[in-house]
Amino acid sequence: MAAINLEAKLALFSELWSPKIVNSFNGHDVMVVKLKGEFVWHSHPDTDDFFLVLKGNLTIRLRDDDVHLGPGDLYVVPKGVEHCPVARDEVHLLLIEPAGTPNTGDAATAVAKETI
Amino acid sequence: MAAINLEAKLALFSELWSPKIVNSFNGHDVMVVKLKGEFVWHSHPDTDDFFLVLKGNLTIRLRDDDVHLGPGDLYVVPKGVEHCPVARDEVHLLLIEPAGTPNTGDAATAVAKETI
Repeated sequence: MAAINLEAKLALFSELWSPKIVNSFNGHDVMVVKLKGEFVWHSHPDTDDFFLVLKGNLTIRLRDDDVHLGPGDLYVVPKGVEHCPVARDEVHLLLIEPAGTPNTGDAATAVAKETI
Repeated sequence: MAAINLEAKLALFSELWSPKIVNSFNGHDVMVVKLKGEFVWHSHPDTDDFFLVLKGNLTIRLRDDDVHLGPGDLYVVPKGVEHCPVARDEVHLLLIEPAGTPNTGDAATAVAKETI
């Protein structure tokens, strides 16, 4: 397998809030995603949530605080912790979650994760 | 917990081949490391090996091929696959491995991983 360039993968799509799988690692999906606007408040009862900002600025709202991330900033939301990602302008992220994790924390409302 | 800036973490040390833990994620250590030169051939029998290049250029030698990575390139060495990282000039990486994984694949020769 060749190296995976994240910027090249991000150039393949424009949809927002739709994580795309670029690789797998120890049973986890490694994904890129574009966000803009405000997501829903949610939590993942069985997994931490890994965010690395590749471009832009992201706020992760927590019930008792806001975390502000810029390019090269990493944050792990611990499992079970309610959070709501918010991006005023478009932001590009690397996400890592166990394969099959619903992006909204709820399979009923989650988007299907396509591999690119 | 605040966001973790990877460049700021990398500015805290200069040792080569000495991964520093910056966070944890689902039982894994999230680490930054500086490499220059050639490592040892090794494999990890129980885990995939996650590499994301933050700065510089890295070659991951495999027994049947070489993988070349530049900034923003991601590669996952599958578990059990022998590999040897080589960097002509200094390269900075984000690494993810299960907590306690020896960097050489062998606890007898592995470096201790400090948290920064």
